[in-house]
Amino acid sequence: MAHIAVPEGISGIRSLVMFRPETGQHLYELAQVLLRGESPLSAAERELIATHVSARNNCFFCMSSHAAAARELFGTGSQVVDCVIENRPTSLLSDKMKALLEIAGKVQQNGKLVTDEDVAAAKKHGAGDRDIHDTVLIAATFSMFNRYVDGLASLTPTNPKEYEPMGKRLATAGYILPAKPNN
Amino acid sequence: MAHIAVPEGISGIRSLVMFRPETGQHLYELAQVLLRGESPLSAAERELIATHVSARNNCFFCMSSHAAAARELFGTGSQVVDCVIENRPTSLLSDKMKALLEIAGKVQQNGKLVTDEDVAAAKKHGAGDRDIHDTVLIAATFSMFNRYVDGLASLTPTNPKEYEPMGKRLATAGYILPAKPNN
Repeated sequence: MAHIAVPEGISGIRSLVMFRPETGQHLYELAQVLLRGESPLSAAERELIATHVSARNNCFFCMSSHAAAARELFGTGSQVVDCVIENRPTSLLSDKMKALLEIAGKVQQNGKLVTDEDVAAAKKHGAGDRDIHDTVLIAATFSMFNRYVDGLASLTPTNPKEYEPMGKRLATAGYILPAKPNN
Repeated sequence: MAHIAVPEGISGIRSLVMFRPETGQHLYELAQVLLRGESPLSAAERELIATHVSARNNCFFCMSSHAAAARELFGTGSQVVDCVIENRPTSLLSDKMKALLEIAGKVQQNGKLVTDEDVAAAKKHGAGDRDIHDTVLIAATFSMFNRYVDGLASLTPTNPKEYEPMGKRLATAGYILPAKPNN
Protein backbone atom coordinates (compact mmCIF):
# COMPACT_ATOMS: atom_id res chain seq x y z
CA MET A 1 0.00 0.00 0.00
CA ALA A 2 1.22 3.47 -0.85
CA HIS A 3 2.46 5.70 1.99
CA ILE A 4 -0.19 8.35 1.16
CA ALA A 5 -3.84 8.23 0.05
CA VAL A 6 -3.47 8.09 -3.75
CA PRO A 7 -6.34 6.89 -6.01
CA GLU A 8 -6.83 3.14 -5.55
CA GLY A 9 -5.93 0.65 -8.27
CA ILE A 10 -3.78 3.15 -10.21
CA SER A 11 -0.13 2.12 -10.49
CA GLY A 12 3.20 3.91 -10.29
CA ILE A 13 3.70 7.56 -11.08
CA ARG A 14 0.18 7.93 -12.50
CA SER A 15 -1.27 7.54 -9.00
CA LEU A 16 1.13 10.19 -7.65
CA VAL A 17 0.45 12.81 -10.31
CA MET A 18 -3.29 12.29 -9.78
CA PHE A 19 -2.69 13.05 -6.09
CA ARG A 20 -0.83 16.28 -6.95
CA PRO A 21 -1.44 17.29 -10.60
CA GLU A 22 0.09 20.75 -10.05
CA THR A 23 3.55 19.19 -9.90
CA GLY A 24 2.55 16.20 -12.07
CA GLN A 25 1.88 18.48 -15.01
CA HIS A 26 5.48 19.69 -15.09
CA LEU A 27 6.86 16.19 -14.57
CA TYR A 28 4.92 14.92 -17.59
CA GLU A 29 5.82 17.94 -19.74
CA LEU A 30 9.48 17.43 -18.87
CA ALA A 31 9.26 13.73 -19.82
CA GLN A 32 7.53 14.55 -23.11
CA VAL A 33 10.14 17.13 -24.22
CA LEU A 34 13.10 15.12 -22.96
CA LEU A 35 12.04 11.70 -24.30
CA ARG A 36 10.00 12.65 -27.38
CA GLY A 37 11.12 16.17 -28.35
CA GLU A 38 13.84 17.02 -30.88
CA SER A 39 17.13 15.24 -30.05
CA PRO A 40 20.02 13.54 -31.87
CA LEU A 41 19.02 10.43 -29.87
CA SER A 42 16.04 8.42 -31.10
CA ALA A 43 13.04 7.97 -28.78
CA ALA A 44 14.02 4.28 -28.53
CA GLU A 45 17.57 5.17 -27.45
CA ARG A 46 16.25 7.61 -24.87
CA GLU A 47 13.85 5.02 -23.44
CA LEU A 48 16.83 2.63 -23.25
CA ILE A 49 18.76 5.13 -21.09
CA ALA A 50 15.67 5.52 -18.86
CA THR A 51 15.41 1.72 -18.56
CA HIS A 52 19.13 1.35 -17.75
CA VAL A 53 18.99 3.91 -14.93
CA SER A 54 15.72 2.52 -13.52
CA ALA A 55 17.15 -1.02 -13.52
CA ARG A 56 20.24 0.18 -11.66
CA ASN A 57 18.01 1.95 -9.12
CA ASN A 58 16.03 -1.27 -8.72
CA CYS A 59 12.79 0.57 -9.55
CA PHE A 60 10.67 -2.25 -10.99
CA PHE A 61 7.77 -0.03 -12.08
CA CYS A 62 9.88 2.47 -14.07
CA MET A 63 12.20 -0.23 -15.44
CA SER A 64 9.31 -2.38 -16.67
CA SER A 65 7.23 0.43 -18.16
CA HIS A 66 10.12 2.11 -19.98
CA ALA A 67 11.52 -1.25 -21.11
CA ALA A 68 8.09 -1.96 -22.62
CA ALA A 69 8.15 1.44 -24.35
CA ALA A 70 11.68 0.82 -25.65
CA ARG A 71 10.70 -2.63 -27.01
CA GLU A 72 7.79 -1.08 -28.88
CA LEU A 73 9.99 1.66 -30.32
CA PHE A 74 12.90 -0.62 -31.29
CA GLY A 75 10.64 -3.19 -32.98
CA THR A 76 13.16 -5.55 -34.66
CA GLY A 77 16.21 -5.74 -32.42
CA SER A 78 14.21 -5.13 -29.27
CA GLN A 79 16.26 -7.81 -27.49
CA VAL A 80 18.80 -5.01 -26.93
CA VAL A 81 16.51 -3.90 -24.08
CA ASP A 82 16.98 -7.15 -22.15
CA CYS A 83 20.74 -7.04 -22.76
CA VAL A 84 20.87 -3.59 -21.17
CA ILE A 85 18.67 -4.63 -18.21
CA GLU A 86 20.76 -7.76 -17.61
CA ASN A 87 24.03 -5.94 -18.31
CA ARG A 88 24.96 -8.48 -21.04
CA PRO A 89 27.40 -7.49 -23.80
CA THR A 90 25.65 -7.13 -27.17
CA SER A 91 26.57 -6.19 -30.72
CA LEU A 92 23.13 -4.52 -30.95
CA LEU A 93 24.52 -1.44 -29.20
CA SER A 94 26.60 1.09 -31.15
CA ASP A 95 29.89 2.23 -29.63
CA LYS A 96 28.29 5.65 -29.14
CA MET A 97 25.37 4.18 -27.18
CA LYS A 98 27.76 2.05 -25.10
CA ALA A 99 29.69 5.19 -24.15
CA LEU A 100 26.49 7.12 -23.37
CA LEU A 101 25.12 4.28 -21.20
CA GLU A 102 28.43 4.32 -19.31
CA ILE A 103 27.89 8.03 -18.60
CA ALA A 104 24.24 7.43 -17.60
CA GLY A 105 25.32 4.69 -15.19
CA LYS A 106 27.75 7.09 -13.51
CA VAL A 107 25.12 9.83 -13.23
CA GLN A 108 22.82 7.24 -11.61
CA GLN A 109 25.40 6.94 -8.82
CA ASN A 110 26.61 10.54 -8.56
CA GLY A 111 27.12 13.19 -11.24
CA LYS A 112 30.67 13.87 -10.08
CA LEU A 113 31.76 10.43 -11.27
CA VAL A 114 31.49 11.49 -14.94
CA THR A 115 35.04 12.24 -16.13
CA ASP A 116 36.48 14.19 -19.06
CA GLU A 117 37.62 10.80 -20.38
CA ASP A 118 34.05 9.43 -20.33
CA VAL A 119 32.88 12.42 -22.33
CA ALA A 120 35.86 12.20 -24.74
CA ALA A 121 35.09 8.50 -25.34
CA ALA A 122 31.49 9.31 -26.26
CA LYS A 123 32.60 12.17 -28.53
CA LYS A 124 35.16 9.90 -30.25
CA HIS A 125 32.25 7.65 -31.23
CA GLY A 126 30.21 10.51 -32.67
CA ALA A 127 28.32 11.95 -29.67
CA GLY A 128 27.83 15.71 -29.76
CA ASP A 129 27.05 18.09 -26.91
CA ARG A 130 23.31 17.48 -27.22
CA ASP A 131 23.79 13.68 -26.96
CA ILE A 132 25.82 14.20 -23.78
CA HIS A 133 23.35 16.72 -22.38
CA ASP A 134 20.29 14.60 -23.05
CA THR A 135 21.95 11.46 -21.66
CA VAL A 136 22.88 13.22 -18.40
CA LEU A 137 19.47 14.86 -18.02
CA ILE A 138 17.59 11.61 -18.75
CA ALA A 139 19.72 9.76 -16.19
CA ALA A 140 19.17 12.55 -13.66
CA THR A 141 15.43 12.71 -14.37
CA PHE A 142 14.97 8.98 -13.84
CA SER A 143 16.97 9.24 -10.63
CA MET A 144 14.09 11.52 -9.63
CA PHE A 145 11.17 9.46 -11.03
CA ASN A 146 12.54 6.24 -9.46
CA ARG A 147 12.75 7.89 -6.04
CA TYR A 148 9.30 9.48 -6.34
CA VAL A 149 7.66 6.16 -7.29
CA ASP A 150 9.49 4.03 -4.69
CA GLY A 151 9.73 6.67 -1.93
CA LEU A 152 5.93 6.81 -1.75
CA ALA A 153 5.57 3.02 -2.24
CA SER A 154 3.20 3.44 -5.19
CA LEU A 155 1.40 0.37 -6.56
CA THR A 156 3.80 -1.74 -8.65
CA PRO A 157 2.30 -4.56 -10.77
CA THR A 158 4.48 -7.68 -10.59
CA ASN A 159 3.18 -9.37 -13.75
CA PRO A 160 5.36 -8.27 -16.70
CA LYS A 161 2.34 -8.63 -19.04
CA GLU A 162 0.71 -5.65 -17.33
CA TYR A 163 3.45 -3.36 -18.63
CA GLU A 164 2.84 -4.14 -22.32
CA PRO A 165 -0.15 -1.81 -22.76
CA MET A 166 1.79 0.92 -20.87
CA GLY A 167 4.68 0.47 -23.31
CA LYS A 168 2.34 0.74 -26.29
CA ARG A 169 0.74 3.88 -24.86
CA LEU A 170 4.09 5.55 -24.11
CA ALA A 171 5.42 4.60 -27.57
CA THR A 172 2.43 5.96 -29.48
CA ALA A 173 0.79 8.72 -27.40
CA GLY A 174 3.80 9.78 -25.32
CA TYR A 175 3.56 11.39 -21.90
CA ILE A 176 0.09 12.79 -21.22
CA LEU A 177 -0.98 13.73 -17.71
CA PRO A 178 -3.73 11.29 -16.64
CA ALA A 179 -7.00 12.83 -15.49
CA LYS A 180 -8.01 12.37 -11.85
CA PRO A 181 -10.68 9.66 -11.62
CA ASN A 182 -14.15 10.83 -10.55
CA ASN A 183 -14.97 9.61 -7.07
CA MET B 1 35.23 23.48 -17.39
CA ALA B 2 31.80 22.09 -18.19
CA HIS B 3 31.59 18.89 -20.27
CA ILE B 4 29.52 20.69 -22.96
CA ALA B 5 29.61 24.19 -24.50
CA VAL B 6 27.33 26.12 -22.14
CA PRO B 7 27.41 29.98 -21.97
CA GLU B 8 30.68 31.11 -20.36
CA GLY B 9 30.76 32.65 -16.89
CA ILE B 10 27.26 31.42 -15.97
CA SER B 11 27.22 29.05 -13.01
CA GLY B 12 25.34 25.88 -12.11
CA ILE B 13 21.97 24.96 -13.48
CA ARG B 14 21.45 28.40 -15.06
CA SER B 15 24.15 27.61 -17.63
CA LEU B 16 22.48 24.26 -18.43
CA VAL B 17 18.96 25.60 -18.89
CA MET B 18 20.38 28.32 -21.17
CA PHE B 19 21.93 25.53 -23.25
CA ARG B 20 18.59 23.73 -23.51
CA PRO B 21 15.70 26.01 -22.49
CA GLU B 22 13.07 23.58 -23.84
CA THR B 23 13.73 21.25 -20.90
CA GLY B 24 14.89 24.08 -18.63
CA GLN B 25 11.47 25.69 -18.74
CA HIS B 26 9.83 22.62 -17.20
CA LEU B 27 12.59 22.21 -14.61
CA TYR B 28 12.09 25.79 -13.43
CA GLU B 29 8.29 25.51 -13.46
CA LEU B 30 8.53 22.33 -11.40
CA ALA B 31 10.84 24.04 -8.89
CA GLN B 32 8.54 27.05 -8.64
CA VAL B 33 5.38 24.99 -7.91
CA LEU B 34 7.16 22.52 -5.64
CA LEU B 35 9.17 25.03 -3.58
CA ARG B 36 6.93 28.13 -3.69
CA GLY B 37 3.42 26.87 -4.51
CA GLU B 38 0.72 26.00 -1.97
CA SER B 39 1.99 23.46 0.60
CA PRO B 40 1.66 22.73 4.33
CA LEU B 41 5.46 23.20 4.44
CA SER B 42 6.82 26.75 4.45
CA ALA B 43 9.12 27.85 1.62
CA ALA B 44 11.94 27.96 4.21
CA GLU B 45 11.26 24.35 5.27
CA ARG B 46 11.20 23.22 1.65
CA GLU B 47 14.51 24.95 0.91
CA LEU B 48 15.91 23.20 4.00
CA ILE B 49 14.95 19.78 2.56
CA ALA B 50 16.58 20.77 -0.76
CA THR B 51 19.73 21.82 1.10
CA HIS B 52 19.84 18.60 3.15
CA VAL B 53 19.62 16.38 0.05
CA SER B 54 22.14 18.47 -1.91
CA ALA B 55 24.60 18.32 1.01
CA ARG B 56 24.24 14.54 1.18
CA ASN B 57 24.84 14.32 -2.58
CA ASN B 58 27.92 16.49 -2.15
CA CYS B 59 26.60 18.97 -4.72
CA PHE B 60 28.28 22.19 -3.62
CA PHE B 61 26.45 24.45 -6.07
CA CYS B 62 22.93 23.29 -5.14
CA MET B 63 23.73 23.03 -1.44
CA SER B 64 25.17 26.55 -1.28
CA SER B 65 22.48 28.26 -3.37
CA HIS B 66 19.55 26.61 -1.58
CA ALA B 67 21.20 27.11 1.83
CA ALA B 68 21.46 30.81 0.97
CA ALA B 69 17.76 30.85 -0.02
CA ALA B 70 16.80 29.02 3.20
CA ARG B 71 18.81 31.51 5.33
CA GLU B 72 17.00 34.42 3.68
CA LEU B 73 13.61 32.79 4.23
CA PHE B 74 14.24 31.74 7.85
CA GLY B 75 15.61 35.16 8.87
CA THR B 76 15.94 34.83 12.66
CA GLY B 77 16.91 31.23 13.44
CA SER B 78 18.72 30.80 10.14
CA GLN B 79 21.48 28.91 11.96
CA VAL B 80 19.20 25.86 11.60
CA VAL B 81 20.51 25.69 8.01
CA ASP B 82 24.10 25.10 9.12
CA CYS B 83 22.94 22.53 11.70
CA VAL B 84 21.23 20.57 8.91
CA ILE B 85 24.24 20.83 6.57
CA GLU B 86 26.63 19.73 9.32
CA ASN B 87 24.21 17.13 10.65
CA ARG B 88 24.32 18.68 14.15
CA PRO B 89 21.43 18.11 16.58
CA THR B 90 19.42 21.30 17.12
CA SER B 91 16.35 22.40 19.05
CA LEU B 92 15.57 24.73 16.15
CA LEU B 93 14.00 21.81 14.26
CA SER B 94 10.49 20.65 15.15
CA ASP B 95 9.93 16.91 15.66
CA LYS B 96 7.89 16.94 12.46
CA MET B 97 10.75 18.47 10.45
CA LYS B 98 13.22 16.01 11.99
CA ALA B 99 11.03 13.11 10.85
CA LEU B 100 10.60 14.60 7.37
CA LEU B 101 14.35 15.17 6.99
CA GLU B 102 14.88 11.53 7.95
CA ILE B 103 12.55 10.52 5.09
CA ALA B 104 14.29 12.92 2.68
CA GLY B 105 17.67 11.44 3.60
CA LYS B 106 16.40 7.96 2.78
CA VAL B 107 14.94 9.09 -0.55
CA GLN B 108 18.34 10.62 -1.34
CA GLN B 109 19.80 7.10 -1.12
CA ASN B 110 16.95 5.04 -2.60
CA GLY B 111 13.19 5.48 -2.35
CA LYS B 112 12.73 1.89 -1.23
CA LEU B 113 14.45 2.67 2.08
CA VAL B 114 11.45 4.72 3.31
CA THR B 115 9.49 2.46 5.68
CA ASP B 116 5.94 2.49 7.03
CA GLU B 117 7.54 3.30 10.39
CA ASP B 118 9.29 6.39 8.99
CA VAL B 119 5.97 7.64 7.64
CA ALA B 120 4.13 6.79 10.89
CA ALA B 121 6.76 8.72 12.89
CA ALA B 122 6.23 11.82 10.72
CA LYS B 123 2.43 11.49 10.99
CA LYS B 124 2.69 11.12 14.77
CA HIS B 125 4.34 14.54 14.84
CA GLY B 126 1.65 16.17 12.73
CA ALA B 127 2.70 15.51 9.12
CA GLY B 128 -0.16 14.92 6.69
CA ASP B 129 -0.10 13.23 3.30
CA ARG B 130 0.85 16.46 1.55
CA ASP B 131 3.85 16.97 3.89
CA ILE B 132 5.01 13.43 3.10
CA HIS B 133 4.36 13.84 -0.63
CA ASP B 134 6.17 17.16 -0.91
CA THR B 135 9.13 15.94 1.16
CA VAL B 136 9.60 12.87 -1.05
CA LEU B 137 9.19 14.83 -4.29
CA ILE B 138 11.59 17.58 -3.17
CA ALA B 139 14.19 14.96 -2.18
CA ALA B 140 13.67 13.17 -5.52
CA THR B 141 13.81 16.42 -7.50
CA PHE B 142 17.09 17.48 -5.90
CA SER B 143 18.49 14.02 -6.58
CA MET B 144 17.87 15.05 -10.20
CA PHE B 145 19.15 18.65 -10.03
CA ASN B 146 22.33 17.58 -8.20
CA ARG B 147 23.10 14.99 -10.90
CA TYR B 148 22.34 17.40 -13.74
CA VAL B 149 24.61 20.11 -12.31
CA ASP B 150 27.50 17.79 -11.39
CA GLY B 151 27.11 15.29 -14.27
CA LEU B 152 27.82 18.08 -16.77
CA ALA B 153 30.49 19.67 -14.53
CA SER B 154 28.82 23.07 -14.61
CA LEU B 155 30.68 26.08 -13.19
CA THR B 156 30.60 26.00 -9.37
CA PRO B 157 31.75 29.14 -7.51
CA THR B 158 33.85 28.21 -4.49
CA ASN B 159 33.47 31.49 -2.58
CA PRO B 160 30.43 31.22 -0.26
CA LYS B 161 29.85 34.99 -0.66
CA GLU B 162 28.88 34.46 -4.30
CA TYR B 163 25.82 32.47 -3.23
CA GLU B 164 24.29 35.28 -1.15
CA PRO B 165 22.77 37.20 -4.10
CA MET B 166 21.46 33.88 -5.50
CA GLY B 167 19.79 33.18 -2.15
CA LYS B 168 18.19 36.63 -2.12
CA ARG B 169 16.93 36.19 -5.68
CA LEU B 170 15.49 32.72 -4.99
CA ALA B 171 13.87 33.94 -1.76
CA THR B 172 12.21 36.96 -3.33
CA ALA B 173 11.64 36.30 -7.06
CA GLY B 174 11.54 32.49 -6.95
CA TYR B 175 12.43 30.26 -9.88
CA ILE B 176 12.40 32.16 -13.17
CA LEU B 177 14.02 30.70 -16.28
CA PRO B 178 17.03 32.89 -17.10
CA ALA B 179 17.17 34.32 -20.63
CA LYS B 180 19.93 33.14 -22.95
CA PRO B 181 22.64 35.83 -23.12
CA ASN B 182 23.06 37.60 -26.48
CA ASN B 183 26.29 36.55 -28.15
